[in-house]
Amino acid sequence: MDPCNSALLTDLYQLTMLHAYRDQDMEETAVFEMFVRRLPAGRNFLVAAGLEQCLDYLENFHFTPEELDWLAGCGRFDRDFVDYLANLRFTGAVHALPEGTVFFANEPILRVTAPLPQAQFVESRLINLIHFQTLIASKAARCVLAAPAKILVDFGLRRAHGAEAGLLAARAAYLAGFTGTATVLAGARFGIPLFGTMAHSLIMAHEREEAAFEHFAHVQPDNVVLLIDTYDTEAAARKAVQIAPRLRERGITIKGVRLDSGDLAEHARQVRRILDEGGLKETIIFCSGDLDEHSTKELLAAGAPIDGFGIGTRLDISVDAPALDCVYKLQEYAGNPKRKRSEGKATWPGRKQIYRGALADGTLAGDCLGLEDHPHPGEVLLQPVMTGGRRLAPAESLAVLRERVNQQLAALPPELRTLTAAPPYAVEIAPELRELAAHLDQTNR
Amino acid sequence: MDPCNSALLTDLYQLTMLHAYRDQDMEETAVFEMFVRRLPAGRNFLVAAGLEQCLDYLENFHFTPEELDWLAGCGRFDRDFVDYLANLRFTGAVHALPEGTVFFANEPILRVTAPLPQAQFVESRLINLIHFQTLIASKAARCVLAAPAKILVDFGLRRAHGAEAGLLAARAAYLAGFTGTATVLAGARFGIPLFGTMAHSLIMAHEREEAAFEHFAHVQPDNVVLLIDTYDTEAAARKAVQIAPRLRERGITIKGVRLDSGDLAEHARQVRRILDEGGLKETIIFCSGDLDEHSTKELLAAGAPIDGFGIGTRLDISVDAPALDCVYKLQEYAGNPKRKRSEGKATWPGRKQIYRGALADGTLAGDCLGLEDHPHPGEVLLQPVMTGGRRLAPAESLAVLRERVNQQLAALPPELRTLTAAPPYAVEIAPELRELAAHLDQTNR
Repeated sequence: MDPCNSALLTDLYQLTMLHAYRDQDMEETAVFEMFVRRLPAGRNFLVAAGLEQCLDYLENFHFTPEELDWLAGCGRFDRDFVDYLANLRFTGAVHALPEGTVFFANEPILRVTAPLPQAQFVESRLINLIHFQTLIASKAARCVLAAPAKILVDFGLRRAHGAEAGLLAARAAYLAGFTGTATVLAGARFGIPLFGTMAHSLIMAHEREEAAFEHFAHVQPDNVVLLIDTYDTEAAARKAVQIAPRLRERGITIKGVRLDSGDLAEHARQVRRILDEGGLKETIIFCSGDLDEHSTKELLAAGAPIDGFGIGTRLDISVDAPALDCVYKLQEYAGNPKRKRSEGKATWPGRKQIYRGALADGTLAGDCLGLEDHPHPGEVLLQPVMTGGRRLAPAESLAVLRERVNQQLAALPPELRTLTAAPPYAVEIAPELRELAAHLDQTNR
Repeated sequence: MDPCNSALLTDLYQLTMLHAYRDQDMEETAVFEMFVRRLPAGRNFLVAAGLEQCLDYLENFHFTPEELDWLAGCGRFDRDFVDYLANLRFTGAVHALPEGTVFFANEPILRVTAPLPQAQFVESRLINLIHFQTLIASKAARCVLAAPAKILVDFGLRRAHGAEAGLLAARAAYLAGFTGTATVLAGARFGIPLFGTMAHSLIMAHEREEAAFEHFAHVQPDNVVLLIDTYDTEAAARKAVQIAPRLRERGITIKGVRLDSGDLAEHARQVRRILDEGGLKETIIFCSGDLDEHSTKELLAAGAPIDGFGIGTRLDISVDAPALDCVYKLQEYAGNPKRKRSEGKATWPGRKQIYRGALADGTLAGDCLGLEDHPHPGEVLLQPVMTGGRRLAPAESLAVLRERVNQQLAALPPELRTLTAAPPYAVEIAPELRELAAHLDQTNR
């Protein structure tokens, strides 16, 4: 039971509700929408990501014989219900923001239209997939804004929350504009460019640091980035200069050096000087070590001669905002709009659409959250992506998604492109949506 | 390539270093230790977890033909090296803290003793596994301390960072004393008790709230916990009272009600009164909604009549401290102790052991971090768990691990059992360890 592909990766209440719906033949069409109730403190926008994995999940959704056996034996469900589960597939429709689209609080990322049992059951995994990749793509976009034109590499696998998080963080970061990742499986699975060199242990396992450098260069001649902070950063930079001519004779170039500790700005300056004076002007300086968008921005603002950054823990966990208030709510059942009214958690009912305004130069100029069947001016953001349980088109390539993010970030109003909190982007609630909500408040119970 | 079981779930530098070690026949015995450099702010202890999954990984470690094909075609490695990878297995030894052991900064959680290439290569996934479960078990232990004798259920799957995080958070929380989880797969895979009832959408899909309650009760008669905050919490509690006699005639008891919004303490008091006056004195009140150890403690301190809590996002992501500074460092190679000296990241060299002191009543009284071959008084914490790549004993049951955590938490000095930061628990660095470090600083380079 691989957790990434198990239909049992869900909350128990999805099964008990399914049981209840099945019992009463409550199989009419339900509409659920996923959205983020509010942006994390200090964040000005989010970047939608994770749709592809959701569509995979929906297309392949089924219970395996092993899972059905467990369900039959767990004491909660009768045989008739387990037989029903054996045949359960997702046959509904999905509308979604294209991956890489910038969005804001209360705006639907995804809409599922399907018979109630199906639309309900998939909630847990759909949130699990969209929440995480959106979280990481949004964080990565901030890193990209903070260090434009620099090499940015995801280094976060080891501290990511488990295997799938490590893999999908690499995808989300690359989608949002990172140059690549250190996570090999992300290269194998998604074709993401891989980066990586050596750990301190390689240096330490050798008797002499320069021997470690030379040995590594001979084995990986196309990939020579030397880690130089194990003992004394500047001394190691001088060793790189010393071995460079011998390597050059064998056709090997020292592509870069990596700094991983201490005052990175100061070390980078010293190391740049040593490399330049030693004729290694083309050798880049790459930094890592507990970095995020703020520290990279500060390093660059201080004029540190750094060419690239490895960003790990703070990216793959989005440490400053490790969760989004992301929910999936029933908006319509059997043709009737629905509204949850729980205190502080009320939702906007009905099938909604985002209508996005723009200035003549393309800069975003405010969204309108309205009803799908009551059009407003502006670009219509939610697009049909699945019908009858099948994708409407093949997966978009990561190259396309990267270009979309690039364009979307460029179109953000300038104050939203900064790392500090700006006044919220305008998302108007359409009058007819307010009226529908008020009407439901008076009638529904 | 299931990410949870792929040998490619690693950092590129593990492969390039392996390549280098292979090239130079650097296959002597290496010793790596994993530890947390410092505790997160406000945390007084950590609870070791994730060892079982590490041992699974090490016992089953291999590259599949599909993975080897990808490696052969990726342009970085020669055929000879790929053939070497095809035969690579983990044949080393592991010492570890038994899962559920309380530990502190700089104390080894795990020690790997193996030929250098193997010991190095497994770093990324071992950290990925231990880091996450230790993070969650440590957070869950705080929740248990904050709400002793209450029902605590993991509700975090949907916001957990991916599939494996959702699954393993359930395990880590249960290990640390939670009553159970909503995550079905954790029941199927680990036998963890499952809890769950209904979502607001079930209520909303019915025309009338009381019809939803009765219908659900008929279908899941042994599992009747009604969600009562969809529209008006107290009104819904009165509906529960109204339907109770009809349900009782059919032998169905309303086990509980769930509150998920608003002022939980005030609603719980009102609802308790309504239930008691309506003869439902045995019906429990269960609360959820963005809870953590602080809010549960406050609710209980305010005398709110709450019997159980569903804790989700803030548990499964450990939102206040979503990462640990967890590392895996070379401590010895070919019989020589090793020490990384990078600024601010220096390590204690050699094969270490934790010697734990205790008072007569069992209360922990300070640890000594020393060398394995230089014993100190106290309990020896690191235990052999694997040799020659095979487990020394079958996996410990979760029941055993839960009892261990229970004992360990009870043995903490009282000031460490609070939710606020206490002065750090005493971990003495043994003199001979300091001497070894100083000696290496003078000689190694």
